[in-house]
Amino acid sequence: MGDVSKRILLGRKLRSSQLGETLLPKRIALPVFASDALSSVAYAPDEVFIMLSLAGASAYVWSWKIGVAVALVMLTVVASYRQNVHAYPSGGGDYEVATVNLGPNAGITVASALLVDYVLTVAVSISSGVQNAASALGFIHGHEATVATVLVIVLAGMNLRGVRESGTFFAIPTYGFMLAILGMGAYGFIQYATGSLHPVESANLTVVPDAHHQNALSGVALIFLLARAFSSGCAALTGVEAISNGVPAFRRPKSKNAASTLLLLGAIAVSMLLSIMALANTIGLKYVDPGDVGRLRDANGNPLPAGYEQHTVVAQLARAVFHDFPPGFYFVVAMTGIILVLAANTAFNGFPVLGSILARDGFAPRALGSRGDRLAYSNGILFLAILAIVLIQAFNAETTRLIQLYIVGVFVSFNLSQLGMIRHWTRHLKTERDPAVRRRMHRSRIINAFGLGMTAVVFVIVLLTKFLAGAWIAILAMVFFFLVMKSIRRHYTNVEKELAADEEDRVMPTRVHAIVLVSKLHKPTLRALAFAQATRPNVLEAVTVSIDDAGTAALLEEWDDRNMAMPLKVLHSPYRELIRPVVDYATAIKKANPRGVVAVYIPEYVVGRWWEQALHNQTALRLKGRLLFTPGVMVISVPYQLHSSAQRARELREEIWVAPSDLRAGRAVDTRNRQIGK
Amino acid sequence: MGDVSKRILLGRKLRSSQLGETLLPKRIALPVFASDALSSVAYAPDEVFIMLSLAGASAYVWSWKIGVAVALVMLTVVASYRQNVHAYPSGGGDYEVATVNLGPNAGITVASALLVDYVLTVAVSISSGVQNAASALGFIHGHEATVATVLVIVLAGMNLRGVRESGTFFAIPTYGFMLAILGMGAYGFIQYATGSLHPVESANLTVVPDAHHQNALSGVALIFLLARAFSSGCAALTGVEAISNGVPAFRRPKSKNAASTLLLLGAIAVSMLLSIMALANTIGLKYVDPGDVGRLRDANGNPLPAGYEQHTVVAQLARAVFHDFPPGFYFVVAMTGIILVLAANTAFNGFPVLGSILARDGFAPRALGSRGDRLAYSNGILFLAILAIVLIQAFNAETTRLIQLYIVGVFVSFNLSQLGMIRHWTRHLKTERDPAVRRRMHRSRIINAFGLGMTAVVFVIVLLTKFLAGAWIAILAMVFFFLVMKSIRRHYTNVEKELAADEEDRVMPTRVHAIVLVSKLHKPTLRALAFAQATRPNVLEAVTVSIDDAGTAALLEEWDDRNMAMPLKVLHSPYRELIRPVVDYATAIKKANPRGVVAVYIPEYVVGRWWEQALHNQTALRLKGRLLFTPGVMVISVPYQLHSSAQRARELREEIWVAPSDLRAGRAVDTRNRQIGK
Repeated sequence: MGDVSKRILLGRKLRSSQLGETLLPKRIALPVFASDALSSVAYAPDEVFIMLSLAGASAYVWSWKIGVAVALVMLTVVASYRQNVHAYPSGGGDYEVATVNLGPNAGITVASALLVDYVLTVAVSISSGVQNAASALGFIHGHEATVATVLVIVLAGMNLRGVRESGTFFAIPTYGFMLAILGMGAYGFIQYATGSLHPVESANLTVVPDAHHQNALSGVALIFLLARAFSSGCAALTGVEAISNGVPAFRRPKSKNAASTLLLLGAIAVSMLLSIMALANTIGLKYVDPGDVGRLRDANGNPLPAGYEQHTVVAQLARAVFHDFPPGFYFVVAMTGIILVLAANTAFNGFPVLGSILARDGFAPRALGSRGDRLAYSNGILFLAILAIVLIQAFNAETTRLIQLYIVGVFVSFNLSQLGMIRHWTRHLKTERDPAVRRRMHRSRIINAFGLGMTAVVFVIVLLTKFLAGAWIAILAMVFFFLVMKSIRRHYTNVEKELAADEEDRVMPTRVHAIVLVSKLHKPTLRALAFAQATRPNVLEAVTVSIDDAGTAALLEEWDDRNMAMPLKVLHSPYRELIRPVVDYATAIKKANPRGVVAVYIPEYVVGRWWEQALHNQTALRLKGRLLFTPGVMVISVPYQLHSSAQRARELREEIWVAPSDLRAGRAVDTRNRQIGK
Repeated sequence: MGDVSKRILLGRKLRSSQLGETLLPKRIALPVFASDALSSVAYAPDEVFIMLSLAGASAYVWSWKIGVAVALVMLTVVASYRQNVHAYPSGGGDYEVATVNLGPNAGITVASALLVDYVLTVAVSISSGVQNAASALGFIHGHEATVATVLVIVLAGMNLRGVRESGTFFAIPTYGFMLAILGMGAYGFIQYATGSLHPVESANLTVVPDAHHQNALSGVALIFLLARAFSSGCAALTGVEAISNGVPAFRRPKSKNAASTLLLLGAIAVSMLLSIMALANTIGLKYVDPGDVGRLRDANGNPLPAGYEQHTVVAQLARAVFHDFPPGFYFVVAMTGIILVLAANTAFNGFPVLGSILARDGFAPRALGSRGDRLAYSNGILFLAILAIVLIQAFNAETTRLIQLYIVGVFVSFNLSQLGMIRHWTRHLKTERDPAVRRRMHRSRIINAFGLGMTAVVFVIVLLTKFLAGAWIAILAMVFFFLVMKSIRRHYTNVEKELAADEEDRVMPTRVHAIVLVSKLHKPTLRALAFAQATRPNVLEAVTVSIDDAGTAALLEEWDDRNMAMPLKVLHSPYRELIRPVVDYATAIKKANPRGVVAVYIPEYVVGRWWEQALHNQTALRLKGRLLFTPGVMVISVPYQLHSSAQRARELREEIWVAPSDLRAGRAVDTRNRQIGK
């Protein structure tokens, strides 16, 4: 049943095929790694405007200055990560940098932050995308959470099916988004300069200050307000670190190409951010918390008519700039929506990759480590989707409220990564003798130290301004992930100790007592008996559990008729139990020969279809499960494949997924270029 | 996780213990087997009154005549089943009678009918019980479906926990119910005779005839109306066959005691039914479909005040009879409610028993056949509960509508059983020579023939009057169960053919190629290697799958350091897959030696807690699953038990449930006397 519905939902199982290891030129690498970083440009300005609006429309004068501050942080972070790219061309990522230089605790702190951030990337990007879509498609208004949930489900479904993502798949919308935003900015300013710009829809509105911020335009209150706006604006920094994970995917010289692409990304992101904020500020755009639209008033201070729909900053700008050219408006809105969905998709790729790295290091269930396995990959996708949906529903898909949780994780990993880089350079400086190299290292260390200083300050600001607004939830989640990872690691370590090999474990058992379980005298039984004989045990017994006297008598008779080589031992089971008599018998034999082993041969027949499987072998399966818990007992399945199993065997063969080639040797790459199927 | 929540919901796992086979004296056997049959007395009169009310209150004059007709059928059925009891003292039940005498198709027709009836027994009894409870506890009104659903869940939970049911458990409420109904009838008639009976609450009401039945008091319409009322009244017959399933539980002489108990049951049921109907008719009780209370009017023909609550027939009688003695009223209502819940509980016992018999005969998944196993038993309970809840919700817990589905199944099995009995006697008469015995057989055959005639007529009446009212649903469900059982049987037969043993299956494999899978050099691996050596294969190889060059190099080095006896073969897996390389390698070896076998040794370590299990052995489990589909490959689990597994092993041991002793030798007994735990 499950199988059938899975097929319907997730489509035909994919045929596996070899994956060519294609290296990316810069022009493709940029869009592949940029969607997350650029997409935040779509909501960061809104957040700045929302925060400032608390003190009324006059606070908007600060908006472009905050934009500049965010841009400065962005460029600092870019400069820092250029050092990472050169130092860790393996694409180690923040987790590796922190683990290598600061130890495993720092590493899993970063990992916890990244896990939380992946979830928030999905929730924030999708929520923002839906909000944006609502600006063009009015009917979405009021159903944002539902639409966002459906989108997450669709995205998870696509990823479970194994979407085929090529470089082009990313290039078109990413370049389209750049063109849309930068083009809109340029065209808007030209129109503004020539006086032909249509007024923005909210130009004539006024904003009632929030009750707590009425006198916020001076002193400490102003500073705090600006700090909050700045923190929210820092959402634009999310995703900048992606390129540093993807160095191995670049063409040679990898590090150099990656570093230039990173710089280009930073420059583009900053330009886009500033052009939006400057244009919005120039033309008097008003934007308040969508949950608090009542604070918007018309030019005379009267409330707006009921049902007024506030559009996102990008949508308002696009409507004004392309007032006489609707296709332009739709292009901007569509590109914004698509890039946000792409950004969410990034998380669906990154989450299982991180899981596999954590599994390799013993911090996550080892089963997640085999990324070639469909199950491990699917579990990550489902886990991520469920958490994201919970967040979307809990916060009603309100980007502004989700943002409060978001940035703290990003800055945890920024800080630990920069701290790790400083340690890295210091360590290398101890051994490096070449003066030119030492000079470069010194310079890199200074850049990273400056980056650390900057991101540390921002981290403190973010913590102070956002802790009560929601960051505590993210921190709590990080602590939870941290503790779980620690316990898993501790468990694996304990098991390893308990399993440590001992010379005495090499001693062969003195005696093998073989039991072949017989329920009927059919092919699987005969095969099991033949195989058991072939293993030449010291004792070989056929054993049947009698739950029905007549049936047992018939079996015994057939046993004699066929002149079987060994006697058939009958275990009586007055209560029609099948499992316990076998377990008890095996235990008794083992007790009588503590240095020997008991080998239990279980004849099984293998059927193919799901409903056939429900009809067979449930007892064999449970018996095997029980016998594993019985010390000194080996469990031997002797399968006999029925015709119907052949088809299923073929399907199983095709079902195995191909992991990204770049995971070879345990390296992690953000797998935006993962391809599956043919 | 699942385990923990199960513990909370279902309580501590039960310790198994031997079960004494206690035989029941008649005074205990009666209540043990009677709850189902007697409980229908609680709703059958209501259904007769509802049907008659369609033609207005004047039609109630027919009520006691219909009661007499139902009583006649009841006594005929009792007489017939007394023959079954003598002929099948093994407690075969209708399924066995039909299978033996009419063939497997008749058998599974009866089984389908019984399965549907078990579901309906739960739905109808619980719905009626809730309706009855609402007569005493007003706040239930309007929430019947919810309360009924909760009750089914509680009942399922109790059965999953393994309720301890003793004879006394049944005796008190069953005798209490008899006392309540018969006492109420007697006391009521005494009061009526002395003129001191308080008028029943609905005595002065009038009933507006249904639009379609206004002129139904003559001709064909009257006959049809009476036939419908009679069909509904036949609900009183459900459960009469229970004793014939339970003969082995009686004290000796079993058949004779069972037959007398059956007669006693029939007499009591008829007395109760008639006393309720006669008293209700005498004192002018009015009762209409609870879904159509608007047809009730006051003495002047005006509508009743909004919120008028119509109480069940039994509750109305009890209120009138015990007007000055409220404890009497509460006693009647409470006993009625309890007996109805007990009747539902009967189905929770009978369903898995029937399942195990069907499994034994190959008509149901064989896993259901081992009743000693907790899983099989639980699945039956859950299946039954879910279906019953679906029905309750679909029909809004309205007994009247559920009854329409109910009776058709009962009469299907009555008819086939009687037909089977006639065949039985005819067959035996062919060989029997003793004139005394022949005389008895002739007499029995006449009784069964009369029973068949009677039940056949009733069956036709039921079909004609109820088909469109809902019986078609029950018939559809029976056809569905029938077809599923046929397919399951066909599948098992095909598998059996495919598995039929052949002399060539006894040939020992010419060559055993043993592969020991190595991931690390720990205890389980050493143990697996030692055991593999002990089985003296022709070839013994240690094999590791390399997904990480560094790890493999370290393993190879350790392998050399430890001077292992055999070389370690490395299978390269560029895509980090673990399963496919092993399957491919095993397949290749098998291909090279078609007459040999490949023995794959899988070292496993066994942990105890649920979360530990999630952290380990997922790959081993999946690998084993895959290898079973690979022809010519034997799968050998070499388990190593970690300390934490010991506790779990103890729990698993305690978890095995004890099946009812009376299921020995595959016999079926309605397990009202099943006991679990100590």
